[in-house]
Amino acid sequence: CQLEFFPGIGEIQYEGPTSRNPMAFRYYNASEVVHGKPMKEWLRFSVAFWHTFRGDGSDPFGSATKAWPWEDASLDPMEMAFRRIRANFEFLRKLGVEYWCFHDRDIAPEGRDLAETNENLDKVVDLALDLQKQTGVRPLWGTAQLFKHPRYMHGAATSPQAGVFAYAAAQVKKAMEVTLRLGGLNYVFWGGREGYHTLRNTHLKTELDNLARFLRMAADYKRKIGFKGTLLIEPKPQEPTKHQYDWDAATTIGFLREHGLKNDFKLNIECNHATLSQHSCEHELQFSSSQGMLGNIDINTGDPQTGWDTDQFQISDPVEATLLMAVVLRQGGLAPGGFNFDAKLRRESTAVEDLFYAHIGGMDALARGLRNAARLLEQGEVDSVIQARYSSFDEGIGKDIVNGKVGFKELEKYALSHPDPIEDLPSAHAEKAEIVLSMYVQ
Amino acid sequence: CQLEFFPGIGEIQYEGPTSRNPMAFRYYNASEVVHGKPMKEWLRFSVAFWHTFRGDGSDPFGSATKAWPWEDASLDPMEMAFRRIRANFEFLRKLGVEYWCFHDRDIAPEGRDLAETNENLDKVVDLALDLQKQTGVRPLWGTAQLFKHPRYMHGAATSPQAGVFAYAAAQVKKAMEVTLRLGGLNYVFWGGREGYHTLRNTHLKTELDNLARFLRMAADYKRKIGFKGTLLIEPKPQEPTKHQYDWDAATTIGFLREHGLKNDFKLNIECNHATLSQHSCEHELQFSSSQGMLGNIDINTGDPQTGWDTDQFQISDPVEATLLMAVVLRQGGLAPGGFNFDAKLRRESTAVEDLFYAHIGGMDALARGLRNAARLLEQGEVDSVIQARYSSFDEGIGKDIVNGKVGFKELEKYALSHPDPIEDLPSAHAEKAEIVLSMYVQ
Amino acid sequence: CQLEFFPGIGEIQYEGPTSRNPMAFRYYNASEVVHGKPMKEWLRFSVAFWHTFRGDGSDPFGSATKAWPWEDASLDPMEMAFRRIRANFEFLRKLGVEYWCFHDRDIAPEGRDLAETNENLDKVVDLALDLQKQTGVRPLWGTAQLFKHPRYMHGAATSPQAGVFAYAAAQVKKAMEVTLRLGGLNYVFWGGREGYHTLRNTHLKTELDNLARFLRMAADYKRKIGFKGTLLIEPKPQEPTKHQYDWDAATTIGFLREHGLKNDFKLNIECNHATLSQHSCEHELQFSSSQGMLGNIDINTGDPQTGWDTDQFQISDPVEATLLMAVVLRQGGLAPGGFNFDAKLRRESTAVEDLFYAHIGGMDALARGLRNAARLLEQGEVDSVIQARYSSFDEGIGKDIVNGKVGFKELEKYALSHPDPIEDLPSAHAEKAEIVLSMYVQ
Amino acid sequence: CQLEFFPGIGEIQYEGPTSRNPMAFRYYNASEVVHGKPMKEWLRFSVAFWHTFRGDGSDPFGSATKAWPWEDASLDPMEMAFRRIRANFEFLRKLGVEYWCFHDRDIAPEGRDLAETNENLDKVVDLALDLQKQTGVRPLWGTAQLFKHPRYMHGAATSPQAGVFAYAAAQVKKAMEVTLRLGGLNYVFWGGREGYHTLRNTHLKTELDNLARFLRMAADYKRKIGFKGTLLIEPKPQEPTKHQYDWDAATTIGFLREHGLKNDFKLNIECNHATLSQHSCEHELQFSSSQGMLGNIDINTGDPQTGWDTDQFQISDPVEATLLMAVVLRQGGLAPGGFNFDAKLRRESTAVEDLFYAHIGGMDALARGLRNAARLLEQGEVDSVIQARYSSFDEGIGKDIVNGKVGFKELEKYALSHPDPIEDLPSAHAEKAEIVLSMYVQ
Repeated sequence: CQLEFFPGIGEIQYEGPTSRNPMAFRYYNASEVVHGKPMKEWLRFSVAFWHTFRGDGSDPFGSATKAWPWEDASLDPMEMAFRRIRANFEFLRKLGVEYWCFHDRDIAPEGRDLAETNENLDKVVDLALDLQKQTGVRPLWGTAQLFKHPRYMHGAATSPQAGVFAYAAAQVKKAMEVTLRLGGLNYVFWGGREGYHTLRNTHLKTELDNLARFLRMAADYKRKIGFKGTLLIEPKPQEPTKHQYDWDAATTIGFLREHGLKNDFKLNIECNHATLSQHSCEHELQFSSSQGMLGNIDINTGDPQTGWDTDQFQISDPVEATLLMAVVLRQGGLAPGGFNFDAKLRRESTAVEDLFYAHIGGMDALARGLRNAARLLEQGEVDSVIQARYSSFDEGIGKDIVNGKVGFKELEKYALSHPDPIEDLPSAHAEKAEIVLSMYVQ
Repeated sequence: CQLEFFPGIGEIQYEGPTSRNPMAFRYYNASEVVHGKPMKEWLRFSVAFWHTFRGDGSDPFGSATKAWPWEDASLDPMEMAFRRIRANFEFLRKLGVEYWCFHDRDIAPEGRDLAETNENLDKVVDLALDLQKQTGVRPLWGTAQLFKHPRYMHGAATSPQAGVFAYAAAQVKKAMEVTLRLGGLNYVFWGGREGYHTLRNTHLKTELDNLARFLRMAADYKRKIGFKGTLLIEPKPQEPTKHQYDWDAATTIGFLREHGLKNDFKLNIECNHATLSQHSCEHELQFSSSQGMLGNIDINTGDPQTGWDTDQFQISDPVEATLLMAVVLRQGGLAPGGFNFDAKLRRESTAVEDLFYAHIGGMDALARGLRNAARLLEQGEVDSVIQARYSSFDEGIGKDIVNGKVGFKELEKYALSHPDPIEDLPSAHAEKAEIVLSMYVQ
Repeated sequence: CQLEFFPGIGEIQYEGPTSRNPMAFRYYNASEVVHGKPMKEWLRFSVAFWHTFRGDGSDPFGSATKAWPWEDASLDPMEMAFRRIRANFEFLRKLGVEYWCFHDRDIAPEGRDLAETNENLDKVVDLALDLQKQTGVRPLWGTAQLFKHPRYMHGAATSPQAGVFAYAAAQVKKAMEVTLRLGGLNYVFWGGREGYHTLRNTHLKTELDNLARFLRMAADYKRKIGFKGTLLIEPKPQEPTKHQYDWDAATTIGFLREHGLKNDFKLNIECNHATLSQHSCEHELQFSSSQGMLGNIDINTGDPQTGWDTDQFQISDPVEATLLMAVVLRQGGLAPGGFNFDAKLRRESTAVEDLFYAHIGGMDALARGLRNAARLLEQGEVDSVIQARYSSFDEGIGKDIVNGKVGFKELEKYALSHPDPIEDLPSAHAEKAEIVLSMYVQ
Repeated sequence: CQLEFFPGIGEIQYEGPTSRNPMAFRYYNASEVVHGKPMKEWLRFSVAFWHTFRGDGSDPFGSATKAWPWEDASLDPMEMAFRRIRANFEFLRKLGVEYWCFHDRDIAPEGRDLAETNENLDKVVDLALDLQKQTGVRPLWGTAQLFKHPRYMHGAATSPQAGVFAYAAAQVKKAMEVTLRLGGLNYVFWGGREGYHTLRNTHLKTELDNLARFLRMAADYKRKIGFKGTLLIEPKPQEPTKHQYDWDAATTIGFLREHGLKNDFKLNIECNHATLSQHSCEHELQFSSSQGMLGNIDINTGDPQTGWDTDQFQISDPVEATLLMAVVLRQGGLAPGGFNFDAKLRRESTAVEDLFYAHIGGMDALARGLRNAARLLEQGEVDSVIQARYSSFDEGIGKDIVNGKVGFKELEKYALSHPDPIEDLPSAHAEKAEIVLSMYVQ
């Protein structure tokens, strides 16, 4: 006998753009083919277990506001863990989403020691595995929570305590095993405590070297156990620390390259993290993609005027949604990655229905972007304008530059014998480009 | 007959901390030995020709405010160029500074074409060479101005026009030759237009690849002409562009490493650029230094509440000055680099004396920091606390981690058989560290 | 014989949303009635003379990039002034815009002294008046440029020099007279230098008091000459100064109220200034409107990740355009104010056509927002949800609170005798509100 | 039998600037007379009960890290409340601080209903009163916590639910009574939930009007019960809300003036809140003071590169400390207000000693600033330079402007008949001012 936690809500249906039903999709039609693939294959949506089933509405200035139907303070922690897992699968089924993401400690409680904690985790995974079989759902990715427990207050892989490094390694090992067992497609590292509050007590180089050691061990262990998924690093510039080592895409890729780890990892770009690092989300996606390193998107949005991670669901600007989807389409999709909703309800959104509204709004915003982006790419107008802009590198001196046939000496000779390029410099037509883009955004 | 542009001002003297004379040094005593070297060897100050002799007080909302004695609109551009060079050397002599920095186009005007422009530059360099011989002054670094002229409006090395790339190459070639001829110790790249205003018209990867090609040609040409100085890249996150490719130290080092250029370049860190990228200046210095990449400091400070480059002279906080100098002392100095005052008078500081006040204030602030930092390092209290904090990696399982002797499997075994590290986790004592630091700041 | 500066371009036509012609309107159909009024009455667009006819593409790191057809360095300043005015009216006619905005010093050059400067201004105004009669165009607003000339480097009304205050007063007096003569509908104060770079040399209270004195004199003089237009203050938090006194809407309204000037002024909200002060533009509009103080909008947009005023044309996000227009519709329009494009081409947009693209893109974005906002208000769904949310203040204890019938004592009695409000606290449904809003955005 | 929670720590002593003991004062010497008053009268330090005795080290990404000796999970909530109060008074005595600040809900737990909650509060206050009598300590201010409990999730005074407004009124009523009973010198309003997350569900004007109604009731009730202390509002721009109504000093004072409440309230300026609103703390102090509205300082500092409230203890920059103290000295002190340490240990500072280090560092930083500021004012050099800068308003046309004797007409006449002020415009000497300031900072 399966409990039902969302009794009044059925499977969410696609009703098309003219629908006025907030409990229906207006743009996301899972099986509809767009740009050569069903929408669900482009979008590969995932629900984040921690925000949706562990988020209680507390914030630095306030206590919990949510009273979810599956929470019951009278039950023991393992019973509660099972109930949340059941709620998760009911939610996924009704929302029509095929992936979920989890932290080890969100799905199962800590025990008296690591051994018992691991046992707790195994028991919850047993149940999840059953429910996965019934529903066809699987993890987009798993991860270890290395930031909440006080043992990680000085860092996990970058803790000054070797014992903490060891404990974190043990935790990631187990989390990778569990992800493999559940058929997870990727494994994520977000280093919430891998950074510093103050340089006054920090040895920067030691911490960075230890972080590299940790990641190398992870890559080795992945191979050892035959986990075929992608290892992903999720950059964030700050918060909770003043400086987080995986600051942004460029920093993270540079670090991986320095330590010979670039082929073992890809990036999981979160939009709100991108803007906190003063980049547009599109920039982070384009940059990662141009390096062959875009593996997954933690899709959310922030408040453009606040300096912390608000993790909101719906990218309300359809232009932005179009641009993000265009990056994904250009690289042929994200698989085995996808779009994970690393997003939370506003603290004062306390109704069970709000969980559906939030995900529906987020999914529809991206589906709208996907439809627009498909038109944008299929028409080719925008791409061909950009290509033409760089065409001087396809022939003559430009081609010689690209092919490494010339150096400063030859280029000086060229410059001295040709008219000053200012005489023939075209306009960038930036404003026209905005108009053209807007034509594709519906 | 040498013109005198600062007739009422003699050579600035050291008068010690109790002096109340704003036209004297209170902390900077050039030949006084601090931490084993004369102060002038640690500090290697340089005056930036562009701000000091070409800055006219204009800003995006206002026209020029300065009426410097060497400026004379009735003279032809070359005569004016000579006067400014003379003013520069008089100023350096009176200030007691042994280095200067310049952009090619600041010291000599453009001619009708590149050939004439190069001739103009040579004539000015002839005069500078004479004056250098008389004074013993030399360039800390030279550079090419690749951002002011409209031909570079779409970028220089990253312009979509191959002809612009070639022109920029020719300009850098000449600027490197001229720097070599003047005995310059370093050569700097600041890519003011190497970035984008909008991704709507930009092919990111093409631009980044071209930037790498350009830098590779520069490194090749340096070797070809036997220039022994350091090539330096100066990161800045944005302004004038929305996104500048040399965003911060980590991004720039990552880029150099990607393109096999890391051994050919070091970094020139500017403090105001650091804070614009949401890093403390100390962070950028420490990070660069830990990578062996800190070659020079463009010393200035910004306004902590504004989002653009204010390029102010004096680091008013003695704690910050102490921390910056501590990084320099720890790496044994910056030579052949130094501290270049990439700083400008406030627009409404219009008296000739203000040029002296600004540099004196800036020099004294760093000299004060140097004295403090020397005490800090000599006492060793701070460093030993940090070292102790990481001592668990000097033995046992920590040493095994560092030496690569263990992996996840061994660490799990360790974690399962040892007490949870939370049981013995020390405090970070961050607030005590602040007190201890403050003891060294006078 | 009228010169033609835009020979290949005719009057811009409305072609509807499916048009792919960037030189046509897709949403702005001037005479089409939307929400009870022709679109042109809601939108009252204005072209900013300074950006469009005086902007040369220079920025803090670069010189001019534009070579507009009306500019001719061989002509004397007054001839050039006449040509620019003619270009302005040709541009307005072809764009189909009925208003323009100007600074005194943009339309006419300074003379040898104030008297001659005023004569210059009168001569240009004579021509503008002629052209206005021919075209039916008039100024949305005029203003005095009190920030560019070095005499204002310490401030205009807030200069420490009484002579500068007097000069600024004389300049505003003349600019108001000229605005009146041209039939201008409003007069604007933007205090670009009314602020400080550093408190080290500033007497805050003296400067604020002088600013109030200046505005009082302006209000007096307006009455004296019978100018019926609105006096508007345009807030901006910083840039060029570190702190600008008219920081944001709340600060400015508070200042006006303090000095008894609230009835004499309204606000001119600029969207990019709003975001620089960490407010959304919608916030500034709603707040001003709720105070009865929203008089005009300087419509533009900034870059959400940069800390300076980029003054871009097109609000690319149709959701934002919808929200801004909804504020305007709710207060019944902006007249006698309107929407002034205080926006500039990107530096590297150098073609004459770009001036059209930029304005067309900006106008269409708002027209799209207007159409959406009209649907939003006519449907009433959003407003009624908000109204219902506050309905507890329409009756019972809520009504007593609003009517001032109860104090702490009565409310304590109420609280002690009623259930804790937590027991019946509704969800905010913030995510649902986002979905509902998106339904109206096309 | 009094428990002792800090057994190894005695009363903190003044040892002078050369001391190397981090458990001693180097600058703060309570009874030493500086600038005419004992230091303790200028500084009037207060410990914040909530951070020091209720802060557990949790943050949005992590759980509690502190294990304070007074905490004992086996005790009932009231017993725990008593222990914390005892710890507070022991701490104050050893630190040598005479004031404390509290939220109602921090010192006593909620009961089953408001009546029981009030009883709980009374019992804790009974104990505090006893301990106050023994120690001579009293509250610098009290306040009601209207942001943590979920009933306030939509706001307290600005909640859309009238029942919540009533409940909040009852809570403030009781907190004011309790503050009066304890001999508290001020009462503070910080509106942590008085703002909005999104305008999508918010009626701005209704909320602002209700906030004014609430404050008016508070002022009325203060008079009714004969509370002679100052009512203080503490501005903060955002966090936890996206927009907080008491944004900054100017906004808050404008709001009070609008609603006729300016004479009933003063401001409590928090430095970290100042910088979050893009103002320097000195700006907020100077502005409030110039309006006669500076009543108290919540002294702390933030991280200049992060966008949230870090609430750190020690203002590490002695220049800043000097400037802040100079504002306080110029207005003759803060009494009945003072300096409340609204600051928290870093999450990973977990030793009981850290509570002392943090407060000692904070107190000493301000004491150092006080000593510097006293020299600055006594010497008069800085103030007289500023005064001279504005001297043109002391006579002639400047005096006529100040006295309202002239308007635009007379000023135009003056401007036309006098030389352009540019001819005689002095330099701002901003850089010299920095040097002069640095002379006073030791």
